[in-house]
Amino acid sequence: MDDVTESTDRSDRDSIRTTDFTMLGTGAMGSALAAALLDAGRSVTVWNRTPGRATDLVARGARAADSVRKAVLASPVVVACLLKHASVEETLGPVAADLRGRTLLNVTTTSPNESRQLAAWAAEHGVDYLDGAIMAVPAMIGSRAGQIFYSGSRAAYDSLLPTLEVWATSEFHGEDAGRASLVDLAMLSGMYQMFTGFFHGAAMVASMGMSAADFAARQAPFLAAMTEGLDGYAKVIDGGDYTVPGQQSLDFSDLTHIVRASEEEGVDPSPIAGVQALISGQIAAGHGSEGLARIYESLRSDA
Amino acid sequence: MDDVTESTDRSDRDSIRTTDFTMLGTGAMGSALAAALLDAGRSVTVWNRTPGRATDLVARGARAADSVRKAVLASPVVVACLLKHASVEETLGPVAADLRGRTLLNVTTTSPNESRQLAAWAAEHGVDYLDGAIMAVPAMIGSRAGQIFYSGSRAAYDSLLPTLEVWATSEFHGEDAGRASLVDLAMLSGMYQMFTGFFHGAAMVASMGMSAADFAARQAPFLAAMTEGLDGYAKVIDGGDYTVPGQQSLDFSDLTHIVRASEEEGVDPSPIAGVQALISGQIAAGHGSEGLARIYESLRSDA
Ligand SMILES: NC(=O)c1ccc[n+]([C@@H]2O[C@H](COP(=O)([O-])OP(=O)(O)OC[C@H]3O[C@@H](n4cnc5c(N)ncnc54)[C@H](OP(=O)(O)O)[C@@H]3O)[C@@H](O)[C@H]2O)c1
Ligand SMILES: NC(=O)c1ccc[n+]([C@@H]2O[C@H](COP(=O)([O-])OP(=O)(O)OC[C@H]3O[C@@H](n4cnc5c(N)ncnc54)[C@H](OP(=O)(O)O)[C@@H]3O)[C@@H](O)[C@H]2O)c1
Repeated sequence: MDDVTESTDRSDRDSIRTTDFTMLGTGAMGSALAAALLDAGRSVTVWNRTPGRATDLVARGARAADSVRKAVLASPVVVACLLKHASVEETLGPVAADLRGRTLLNVTTTSPNESRQLAAWAAEHGVDYLDGAIMAVPAMIGSRAGQIFYSGSRAAYDSLLPTLEVWATSEFHGEDAGRASLVDLAMLSGMYQMFTGFFHGAAMVASMGMSAADFAARQAPFLAAMTEGLDGYAKVIDGGDYTVPGQQSLDFSDLTHIVRASEEEGVDPSPIAGVQALISGQIAAGHGSEGLARIYESLRSDA
Repeated sequence: MDDVTESTDRSDRDSIRTTDFTMLGTGAMGSALAAALLDAGRSVTVWNRTPGRATDLVARGARAADSVRKAVLASPVVVACLLKHASVEETLGPVAADLRGRTLLNVTTTSPNESRQLAAWAAEHGVDYLDGAIMAVPAMIGSRAGQIFYSGSRAAYDSLLPTLEVWATSEFHGEDAGRASLVDLAMLSGMYQMFTGFFHGAAMVASMGMSAADFAARQAPFLAAMTEGLDGYAKVIDGGDYTVPGQQSLDFSDLTHIVRASEEEGVDPSPIAGVQALISGQIAAGHGSEGLARIYESLRSDA
């Protein structure tokens, strides 16, 4: 907490509410977001826990605040781009009263329930809360190639949209503040599983002396082409009928030979054995002649 | 085994060795391969365990043989496209002597060691053995979009290449007959893990009412874009230095929030928990500040 007195408080409020946006956190992502705002002609106040990490942004016209409180008071919209949920709680807890009447846009990666907690905390303190989940690396910020999902305050989203579009393609997913995070984490779950599949495949062919680069040159275009099949699986899932003709069956998808080959080559088969366990479970339950997408049901079965 | 006599044997040999290729198995894939051969002007004899499943091919000019033996005797090159390794053993075991002096191209999906076993069996019986692993669905056969990996007899590969190119893009991976299968299974391992990631992500967002189709519309282009990152990971793996700057660290890749979100939404977290276990293992071993690609080492550690 800042050790400001009531009088400096008043003078802070009067003198420094001068920029359009405040960015809390000028790490890799916060810096990219702030830079894009500056490029688009918005005025920006920046704050970072460790001082001196916003020199470039200041050179480009940003104002540096030397306390969270001053940073918050500087703008009607405060963007938080910190490491994780705990960093946000730690940083914003002491300035709840200063945030009242402002919009808090939190683009820190959080779980859906963490976003919901922050939204509830914001509501208690009269803060308009919008949660953002960034599907982009810093280099993609400022182009339409990246995507950012939002959820929470619809009013905040609508009024900020012209600015949000400066960063990336924007999508609003509803007033439940946890939704943006949920879509984000679901997307990332797919990505990390794809990466792990690549690492596993690269380990398998390493035993025959193929380099990971040679494997990547084949795997990358193959996986990219196979993403075209996702929509077909999705239609089956949404239809709920895994017996529709034309599907690759679970029996056909038995991956025992891949698990065995992985073991034979001295490679930990666990990533693909996990997939096979889902397939075996459905076959054992009598669904072998139905489509592969049925393993979605295995995953939902705890619900 | 056919119950042909020595005399019909002789007459078989004289009269029916009349086509360029024999296709054993006219299921979905065998039919596509045979059709592409016919389209390219090759003469083809076909055989299928269950008779009457090659009517279309016969209408397009293929000759149907009513026994494996007659089919084998009909051509210098015999292609086997059966369900699995056991089907090949069962089908070819009785006609080993008839295969002598011919080329056997086995495109049935087998494990690397199964391919090696078949190659050894073929060598014993004076059969030139080439193993093929098909990275394509039947509809892709006859275009360059599909890929087929080969290993085993280099001489067979070289002489057959003009025909192999009719089917798909061809790649020879060495004289160890198991290699084509190994590359194939490594590629498929990646694909099935990517599909599972998609099913898992779709299950996560289902809890907020998003359809699998809506999720696929976002996930497919995202994953396709992310395949561009595989080459960068490969370079790190091949270099063997996971401390090279610019890598996403294992600490940054901690997926605890995805595992937790999956649990919170009532979705079995096992597919992503498996990935997180690999990441945690590397972090616990003191490598948290090193790159994500280091989980490749976890997988190789049994080697
Ligand atoms: N980089 C990406 O590709 C990417 C993509 C999508 C989403 N994101 C998300 O964006 C957020 C920021 O990521 P980044 O790439 O900018 O990370 P980063 O470069 O590591 O920066 C982390 C930032 O958080 C601050 N911070 C950490 N702990 C703090 C605490 N307890 N109190 C106050 N500040 C704290 C750091 O301040 P110090 O300088 O004082 O350490 C720094 O400003 C993360 O939630 C990340 O998941 C990043
Ligand atoms: N379809 C694809 O997308 C694809 C892609 C890559 C690789 N492959 C591989 O290609 C091979 C054939 O696949 P497919 O799609 O053509 O499968 P399929 O349509 O199910 O056909 C299977 C074929 O194997 C025969 N067969 C099964 N068991 C047999 C046995 N014990 N003895 C003799 N013949 C037997 C079947 O004969 P009956 O008609 O008598 O049952 C049929 O001709 C498989 O190894 C598969 O993994 C397929």
